[in-house]
Amino acid sequence: MRAVWLENRILSYRDDLPQPEPIAGEALVKVHLAGICGTDLELVKGYYPFRGIPGHEFVGEIVSAPDGPHRIGQRVVGEINIACGSCRSCLAARPTHCENREVLGIKNRNGAFAEYLCLPLKNLIAVPDAVSDDAAVFAELLAAALEIQEQIQIRSTDRILVLGAGRLGQLIAQTLVPLDCDLTVVARYKNQQALLADRHIAWIEAHAVRGQAFDIVIEATGSADGLVLARQAVRPRGTIVLKSTYKENESLAMDFSAVVVDEITLVGSRCGPFAPALQLLEDRLVDPSVLIDSRYGLNEAMKAFEHAAAPGALKILFRTT
Amino acid sequence: MRAVWLENRILSYRDDLPQPEPIAGEALVKVHLAGICGTDLELVKGYYPFRGIPGHEFVGEIVSAPDGPHRIGQRVVGEINIACGSCRSCLAARPTHCENREVLGIKNRNGAFAEYLCLPLKNLIAVPDAVSDDAAVFAELLAAALEIQEQIQIRSTDRILVLGAGRLGQLIAQTLVPLDCDLTVVARYKNQQALLADRHIAWIEAHAVRGQAFDIVIEATGSADGLVLARQAVRPRGTIVLKSTYKENESLAMDFSAVVVDEITLVGSRCGPFAPALQLLEDRLVDPSVLIDSRYGLNEAMKAFEHAAAPGALKILFRTT
Repeated sequence: MRAVWLENRILSYRDDLPQPEPIAGEALVKVHLAGICGTDLELVKGYYPFRGIPGHEFVGEIVSAPDGPHRIGQRVVGEINIACGSCRSCLAARPTHCENREVLGIKNRNGAFAEYLCLPLKNLIAVPDAVSDDAAVFAELLAAALEIQEQIQIRSTDRILVLGAGRLGQLIAQTLVPLDCDLTVVARYKNQQALLADRHIAWIEAHAVRGQAFDIVIEATGSADGLVLARQAVRPRGTIVLKSTYKENESLAMDFSAVVVDEITLVGSRCGPFAPALQLLEDRLVDPSVLIDSRYGLNEAMKAFEHAAAPGALKILFRTT
Repeated sequence: MRAVWLENRILSYRDDLPQPEPIAGEALVKVHLAGICGTDLELVKGYYPFRGIPGHEFVGEIVSAPDGPHRIGQRVVGEINIACGSCRSCLAARPTHCENREVLGIKNRNGAFAEYLCLPLKNLIAVPDAVSDDAAVFAELLAAALEIQEQIQIRSTDRILVLGAGRLGQLIAQTLVPLDCDLTVVARYKNQQALLADRHIAWIEAHAVRGQAFDIVIEATGSADGLVLARQAVRPRGTIVLKSTYKENESLAMDFSAVVVDEITLVGSRCGPFAPALQLLEDRLVDPSVLIDSRYGLNEAMKAFEHAAAPGALKILFRTT
């Protein structure tokens, strides 16, 4: 099988890997498209000591499922956390926080930058016919954007600032538009600004952010500077949502006295729900395909990752067929 | 007038200060009792460059009020934030976060470690007859403890850990008892442990705290260690409430990637509502007077502050008459 391989922070293209075999309850999925995410870039930097096939954003097709033969041929996206079902988090209905979880392409489970992957059948969600592969490949990222709305209440009167107009920031902004709140996005690069302008979403540059002027600030830059700007921009008793992961072990300093005095709330936010993400795509309330920057073959892995890490780069996809 | 004076981090006793004169809308309050708070100790360490009379926890009596003569003789406690009424925070109904606020004994306003203080009439809340001075002097601290319940929803099924069993930690624990949740307090000193045991509140030592076992962790130790322990103790998607202020400019490091991955919520929490605090005291649902450790005269300021800073010390009061 052809795939991208990560080992000791080195990426390589391999064409000698065995095709994975689904165990009980799992399905074999032929990957159609897979997207490079910020977390993949962090993995290469050493965010987590992963060895194997990276990649967790994908759309594909079930080609083998011993325990669910009726699902063969179904086009699917996948919940990336594989839960044990018996730990404290699973028993408390928080499977994405399973203490023993494997995470597709991130932790103990080969991922989507390959011709095939395996996931439990219960992790695979059917894609409606009206949703193209180019849209469905964004389902995981869109679900992560929607997790914000699962965690905090957003009112139409809220002034919201999204920091970062890359892949995730753009999708977050798109999911907030239907809420009709007062939305502003901090966008650094011309192409990011143009995408926002096309959708009539207000954008500004970082230097123009007014202090203490926002009820909710969503940090999606992945940089320490973003955290500092979020702290400056949020009003007393406001909320900062942290959507970025940072390089492992990089502790960031924060003036927690100021957080207490201004009664700020910080909310860490990660993976979200797939069903509403697919619904938004089916209803065409969100259009992620405008975020597709370039497509590469698996044998162009290094070039693809370099492109994804370039300033202002949007979504880079692998064509796996 | 006799008072405690703080200047360049040096405390002194003064008997040559002029009695303050209330401006329009203000009242002159004769102080009965005033309590030393953790913030006062931080002020002396340089948490804020305050010069003047410290002290913000008090109970007293209105002795002069040009704009409210009918209130003369009333026994009162006081909201410590003096708001401008016209800034963004005031117009948004967040007067305790007024951008131009003075804070009694903390910022631009002489405080309660004195025979007399001045506060706006609207900041002064009448104390019910059934509430003794020894109880009422805790109203401000009790209000701060109750702010937690204004900010987060607490369910009877929640497992709550309070870190720190000093003055604030004890009061927080007492306010949580009526909610009938699963409450545990980390208590370091024998006297703190005994006070909790007297009220049938479960306590443990820090080394016995189980990882990821609490839905809500309330950090009231004021130390960086407390923040680290809070992070270890809270479950994924749990909440950490930060009740401590730290020495100014002391940025504490935190692994924000872990906060994101575990979707932790951090809530800064400061001053709270006086009315429910006085109600709890009137209903005797909370008994803060057991927390009184010692009483000192104003002329014993240094000794009183040293006592308040001693390990395991509880509430130190100034008798001001």
